[in-house]
Amino acid sequence: MTDSRKPVFLVIGAGAGIGGNAALRFAAGGYHSVLARRSDEDGLARLVGEIEAAGGSASGTLLNAAEDGAIEELVARTEADIGPVHCALYNLGAQIGNRALPDTPHRIFELGWRLGTYGVFRLAHALFPAMVERAKTGAHGTLLVTSATAAVRGNAGQHSHAAAMGGRRMLCQTLNAEFAPQGVHVAHVVVDGAVDAPDTLGKLLGDKFEGFKAGKGRDGVIDPAALAETYWHLAHQPRNCWSHEVDVRPWTDVPWWNDNPDPQIDSRGKGFAGPRDGD
Amino acid sequence: MTDSRKPVFLVIGAGAGIGGNAALRFAAGGYHSVLARRSDEDGLARLVGEIEAAGGSASGTLLNAAEDGAIEELVARTEADIGPVHCALYNLGAQIGNRALPDTPHRIFELGWRLGTYGVFRLAHALFPAMVERAKTGAHGTLLVTSATAAVRGNAGQHSHAAAMGGRRMLCQTLNAEFAPQGVHVAHVVVDGAVDAPDTLGKLLGDKFEGFKAGKGRDGVIDPAALAETYWHLAHQPRNCWSHEVDVRPWTDVPWWNDNPDPQIDSRGKGFAGPRDGD
Amino acid sequence: MTDSRKPVFLVIGAGAGIGGNAALRFAAGGYHSVLARRSDEDGLARLVGEIEAAGGSASGTLLNAAEDGAIEELVARTEADIGPVHCALYNLGAQIGNRALPDTPHRIFELGWRLGTYGVFRLAHALFPAMVERAKTGAHGTLLVTSATAAVRGNAGQHSHAAAMGGRRMLCQTLNAEFAPQGVHVAHVVVDGAVDAPDTLGKLLGDKFEGFKAGKGRDGVIDPAALAETYWHLAHQPRNCWSHEVDVRPWTDVPWWNDNPDPQIDSRGKGFAGPRDGD
Amino acid sequence: MTDSRKPVFLVIGAGAGIGGNAALRFAAGGYHSVLARRSDEDGLARLVGEIEAAGGSASGTLLNAAEDGAIEELVARTEADIGPVHCALYNLGAQIGNRALPDTPHRIFELGWRLGTYGVFRLAHALFPAMVERAKTGAHGTLLVTSATAAVRGNAGQHSHAAAMGGRRMLCQTLNAEFAPQGVHVAHVVVDGAVDAPDTLGKLLGDKFEGFKAGKGRDGVIDPAALAETYWHLAHQPRNCWSHEVDVRPWTDVPWWNDNPDPQIDSRGKGFAGPRDGD
Repeated sequence: MTDSRKPVFLVIGAGAGIGGNAALRFAAGGYHSVLARRSDEDGLARLVGEIEAAGGSASGTLLNAAEDGAIEELVARTEADIGPVHCALYNLGAQIGNRALPDTPHRIFELGWRLGTYGVFRLAHALFPAMVERAKTGAHGTLLVTSATAAVRGNAGQHSHAAAMGGRRMLCQTLNAEFAPQGVHVAHVVVDGAVDAPDTLGKLLGDKFEGFKAGKGRDGVIDPAALAETYWHLAHQPRNCWSHEVDVRPWTDVPWWNDNPDPQIDSRGKGFAGPRDGD
Repeated sequence: MTDSRKPVFLVIGAGAGIGGNAALRFAAGGYHSVLARRSDEDGLARLVGEIEAAGGSASGTLLNAAEDGAIEELVARTEADIGPVHCALYNLGAQIGNRALPDTPHRIFELGWRLGTYGVFRLAHALFPAMVERAKTGAHGTLLVTSATAAVRGNAGQHSHAAAMGGRRMLCQTLNAEFAPQGVHVAHVVVDGAVDAPDTLGKLLGDKFEGFKAGKGRDGVIDPAALAETYWHLAHQPRNCWSHEVDVRPWTDVPWWNDNPDPQIDSRGKGFAGPRDGD
Repeated sequence: MTDSRKPVFLVIGAGAGIGGNAALRFAAGGYHSVLARRSDEDGLARLVGEIEAAGGSASGTLLNAAEDGAIEELVARTEADIGPVHCALYNLGAQIGNRALPDTPHRIFELGWRLGTYGVFRLAHALFPAMVERAKTGAHGTLLVTSATAAVRGNAGQHSHAAAMGGRRMLCQTLNAEFAPQGVHVAHVVVDGAVDAPDTLGKLLGDKFEGFKAGKGRDGVIDPAALAETYWHLAHQPRNCWSHEVDVRPWTDVPWWNDNPDPQIDSRGKGFAGPRDGD
Repeated sequence: MTDSRKPVFLVIGAGAGIGGNAALRFAAGGYHSVLARRSDEDGLARLVGEIEAAGGSASGTLLNAAEDGAIEELVARTEADIGPVHCALYNLGAQIGNRALPDTPHRIFELGWRLGTYGVFRLAHALFPAMVERAKTGAHGTLLVTSATAAVRGNAGQHSHAAAMGGRRMLCQTLNAEFAPQGVHVAHVVVDGAVDAPDTLGKLLGDKFEGFKAGKGRDGVIDPAALAETYWHLAHQPRNCWSHEVDVRPWTDVPWWNDNPDPQIDSRGKGFAGPRDGD
């Protein structure tokens, strides 16, 4: 029997940036968005209100994703009481800023793993059985995972974040290997640039946030609404043509693999050889 | 002065698969599609006819992309006579099937480079100056490059193809590094699966093509129309959120980095350790 | 004041395979090898005995690396009572064989992280301050990390192992970024093939181990003594020329990035196009 | 019948840096080194003289590797007149310094491919049949390929170099896939740092070379003699434990994947979040 309820878009980590904008986009496309975040009940209510004001359907809940059983309970409750989760977005990060190894406490490193890697495992564990069942009747499921540059290279000062994201990336590959052929689309999105996200980067930078964005120039920071469009696209690729890994960054940003943000390109064609490029 | 003509979508390598479908999609979205291919004038006319029958605007031309000056002349002629090329798709490959090294002649290896790597360089050289100019007034340009698994790993028997695609991938990165900040979006798409393309894979497999597709199961081969949607999405990402590298494959396909297409997952949870995974 | 004691080579995870052979090689080169392993006091004594019989210096200890404080205490005790740890080898894995997601319990996933990722963090935390101090007077330190294919790609059935190893790899990069310029060489070795290791692969395969090795053919399994030579080489590269990531596999093994172990290379040069390679 | 002549170490691209030092190292180990370079007969004679003065055996020849037939002829002549080539080092680069796309002429781009990619193909084509034959009787062959950062990422201004090196890297993978199981070891060495090479980087930098090296600090530039040790190690790994890809750089150099050469690590542990690392 087909579920007659609206398909659900479940966001774990629904702040005013990527999570909230994705919830808005999916609600506009006909989903009921369930927004879960750790704190700020007012902010959560505001996001739900905005979605409803735009004609969409949404609800919110506070969630401590690091707590045993919390993700599992949310998935069970959502499937039972709200609707079938056709698409989930895992949007929690583990960024704590740059810290030297001696300044990275063991419990912080563990918490990074708990939020950055283990939470994805727990979400998949709880959610995929139902998605696999539904895929048998044609409705493929999608797990979108917001990831970071730290998933593909480890920078100085990023011990906790990079270890958590590197584990996340490999986990997304093992999940994809097992579940893509069962009808669950796993997409790992490497966000390789700053996001205009007031609840995360904004809080981290505090009153430097506006100056930071201004310094980036026009369109120099990722608009989470634009990223939400890419998430929508990924979640609706037909199953003959699924993307697993996608990167995004602003046009003016240097991709993580490049190291010359402002190259001394000699217009006379008599350049200086990059010292990196060997003998 | 703004160009009042329709924006052009230029396809180099416009067969009945990816190229033709992308041309159809972009024409449906308001572009005039220019289709260039090496041979088969009838096939070309058929593709143009289909686009026009669907209400779109298109024109076609034969092009030997390996010939000196051919790509350059096509770009100049298109910009002068048809319209500004807002998006180009380089869709030529260099796949010649598996060949051992002794069976890979020097001239074949060179031709692979000429079509697989050098053609992208020549197209960018000819096209990007105009795109950079237009970007100054707000209309960013896009270069979509259809690429292959061979761009990220070299398999046995793929000397020519992999060398050409590996060069292509690194070139796309250098083009992106120089031109993204000037308003040209370069996207390198790793097509990691078989495409339902009658003019390329179809010709290569001949009368085994239908059986090959059937063996892949339902939705087991990439529908070029689905890929064309991803191309459309990439070309229209706002410049604050550009993707540079994207992979696609059918749900049932094993991604290139996995080697267990049919894993012996022991349901008793007492699996056999993959012999690859170390001590 | 220079430490007049022998330099120590500390092995965490010293079985009869990679760990034991590396201990033997470094002892032969003048180090005192400290071998730590979780269990099998007899096996440990046997390894120490073999090293001493060969004229080397060694000692052993049992260690539960997953226990809080155990690694830290071992490092402190070794530095105080035995000698300065000039080189450490983290040789613990987290391989549990292939298991589907539903058969991968949460505590197993966590234990994988604890041994695969967190242990490296804890070892570096405890050991690097002393190494940094010694590097100021010319004696660079080295951390060798035995890693696995699962660090660079996630295969089906490897949720725990790949997440742990992916985290390990990114952590090695962040450690290298912070500590290489302070004189600590971090090398991440991707063991991409089966190792002739009786205590790990041997136990996993049980009485299939000999048959497995025979099936691999002559020199078809990594001899841990050969790998120990590569470890020795890495630990003694002068600091102007350090390697961070190295892969190893037997000559007959298919590297992880290839998927045609037995390619149908058509000697007539009329091969079949790999269906992976695009349009 | 076993060849009673000395094994030959053939260097294509034998300047006073990597090539010359590798020739010296292999001659010291019992090989006859054959040094081939494009120009500077005096410099060539000097290198041969140094090797002989050190008690080694060597000979030199001028070679225009871009010329059709030149590499093939050199291989044939060496095998016939001097000895069996047990190890070859392809040491030619295609670095021309940073040039914007408009300043990169088509013929330069083609020459980059000819030296950077095609030459490796031609060398393997000419050399591997004899190596495969010898491997049947136990003497495995080795192809060492000096490569560059540009093989793994394309930086701004590196259109020619990166396209050539990207092709080279994928070609090394296809060669390895086909020939490792036939007894030929292919090793691709990513030189990710400046080399103290008077004939290449020295010429490129001219009178800025000494200042450049001084600015790098002590041991801040790769000593080609140190790299030669790594080449020797790779060429003599037993076939049960072969490395295919290895990176090297000085301790103080930032690896290509990192972008914070001088991270603002806040010792108070309240760092600034890298703007790259996502939402």
